[in-house]
Amino acid sequence: MQVRDIGEQGLLKRLQRFCPSEIIGDDAAVVATEPGQSLVVTTDVLVDGVHFSEITTSGEDAGWRAAAANLSDLAAMGASPLGITVGLGLSGEVAVSWVEQLYQGMTQCLQKYNTPIVGGDIVRSPTTTIAISAFGQVNPLRVIRRNQARVGDAIVVTGVHGASSAGLKLLLHPELGQNLSDSDRTALVKAHQRPQPRLDVLPILWEIVETHQAKSLPSQIYVAGMDSSDGLADAVLQICRNSGVGAVIESTQISLPRQFSHWLTKEQALEYALYGGEDFELVLCMPKEPAYDLVQQLGYGAAVVGIITDGSTVILRDQTKEYPDQVLNLEQGFQHFHY
Amino acid sequence: MQVRDIGEQGLLKRLQRFCPSEIIGDDAAVVATEPGQSLVVTTDVLVDGVHFSEITTSGEDAGWRAAAANLSDLAAMGASPLGITVGLGLSGEVAVSWVEQLYQGMTQCLQKYNTPIVGGDIVRSPTTTIAISAFGQVNPLRVIRRNQARVGDAIVVTGVHGASSAGLKLLLHPELGQNLSDSDRTALVKAHQRPQPRLDVLPILWEIVETHQAKSLPSQIYVAGMDSSDGLADAVLQICRNSGVGAVIESTQISLPRQFSHWLTKEQALEYALYGGEDFELVLCMPKEPAYDLVQQLGYGAAVVGIITDGSTVILRDQTKEYPDQVLNLEQGFQHFHY
Repeated sequence: MQVRDIGEQGLLKRLQRFCPSEIIGDDAAVVATEPGQSLVVTTDVLVDGVHFSEITTSGEDAGWRAAAANLSDLAAMGASPLGITVGLGLSGEVAVSWVEQLYQGMTQCLQKYNTPIVGGDIVRSPTTTIAISAFGQVNPLRVIRRNQARVGDAIVVTGVHGASSAGLKLLLHPELGQNLSDSDRTALVKAHQRPQPRLDVLPILWEIVETHQAKSLPSQIYVAGMDSSDGLADAVLQICRNSGVGAVIESTQISLPRQFSHWLTKEQALEYALYGGEDFELVLCMPKEPAYDLVQQLGYGAAVVGIITDGSTVILRDQTKEYPDQVLNLEQGFQHFHY
Repeated sequence: MQVRDIGEQGLLKRLQRFCPSEIIGDDAAVVATEPGQSLVVTTDVLVDGVHFSEITTSGEDAGWRAAAANLSDLAAMGASPLGITVGLGLSGEVAVSWVEQLYQGMTQCLQKYNTPIVGGDIVRSPTTTIAISAFGQVNPLRVIRRNQARVGDAIVVTGVHGASSAGLKLLLHPELGQNLSDSDRTALVKAHQRPQPRLDVLPILWEIVETHQAKSLPSQIYVAGMDSSDGLADAVLQICRNSGVGAVIESTQISLPRQFSHWLTKEQALEYALYGGEDFELVLCMPKEPAYDLVQQLGYGAAVVGIITDGSTVILRDQTKEYPDQVLNLEQGFQHFHY
């Protein structure tokens, strides 16, 4: 059955089961917020043939990834999600089951964070397009911004980097990674198909910051950061550029997926970790004491990977001195964005 | 100059002047809300060749209309706008100037209501697509819902109906309306190209409701309603269906653009008014006393067009008895939505 067989209204009826019933059927959705919180909003557009392929990406995977990317943007601001809206452009030929799976995937991801789909729009389009806006709330004193990194801050990653892009590579080229076990391969592919937005980091982070804040009064502890959706290198570079600082990253401290050691050379592994993107971890800058506490509490994959310096260059350093220092720049990280 | 000449980053840089500088360059935007208000969100997707034509619609008109439609959805919920996000899918061939004009048109419309563009996403797409999400805030006791109309309520329209669709007709068929003056023609075309979301109605409405509420204590005055973006008939039918009531509409009470009298027959005029759509007026149901006060204060075009009845049918009645009663149904109003 294709979308044209049941039309926009027929499709809307089928998709309503994915939305809270009290919210459907008005010009807009009304969502309660907590007092004293600021609103946080973000939006993403995903296009068939550019960001996913209707043929090779299951609706569930496309839905999960779209929801996860938007929740990750909220996490990167320190915000708790309140809901998302979903705008769909669909050609008449799209299978109704694909659209239902798309909603299934979105709600599966959202359910983990008690986040509803509160609105949407379905329109006819020659190109299947998914436009998601996510909104959340944040204590205005706890907004995590890109422009607040300070010289001396430790740079924390909340997990391993490179797994998602390696998983995509394995999906596109199944002949690669012959020496990977089935479970290793599955784990990397899953990292790509089902990335986890790190909303779980926030309560842990703020508890640690508050503990240290109590000791360090009256100086205010700031946390700067963003998510690593465009790669770890991009995240560090963006934070540094926005904060007017530099950084030194220790390549040996970057946590890699454990599966990489059976498969990739050190250089390849680092390439995936720095430039792969879509790992949706958080890259956070804060004073060393809370940083190391956070890494300890988060466990597997979390690490202090470097330090914020004065100046404006971001240097990748190899502690083992096997490789010379390397200056990172934005062009490498943005390659996959160019027209 | 085409989008492909300057790429996503180049385009983003040019468009940043349309967004508040303190909001740009993070994973998401942070927006302050007032205490005690609920969040209201809505989203629309507009597709080249379906909702506008990149060739025949100026970027400014497309932008204005997209922003106006979303602000109208907020007005229809009783909400004040806080901001919008803009997701763009663009092919490399789109003229950069068209995209800049699109933002120009959006901000022109938004400026009237002090509403910023707080975020966005620009991606490559074979089909030019504009996905807008608007969010606002509302006192939770003053949400205007579709399901709150009560038997005996007067049905108020905040302005004339039919002008927008008539203006579109004149744009598409310039040979029509030969007996219209230039200024009449311009007025109708402008109604289509620059519709005004009726956010201005809200403070007037609530002041009147509060005055009457003070007299009618302890019984609560509810206001039901929606906007007439899909036509006046559709709005009345949606409100009735959601409220479990019927209505009688007096066809002679429906306010028509004054230009219609020089051009259209009574039947044609009513057809545009009932089914044309995109007038973005509000259709509000409330007790008669505040209803007539509201109409008086709003002036030109505002009118009480009918009354809410028990049952479930919506009847169009001609007070002059020239035409028999007619039962309205959703199919007529939804024609333009079918695949």
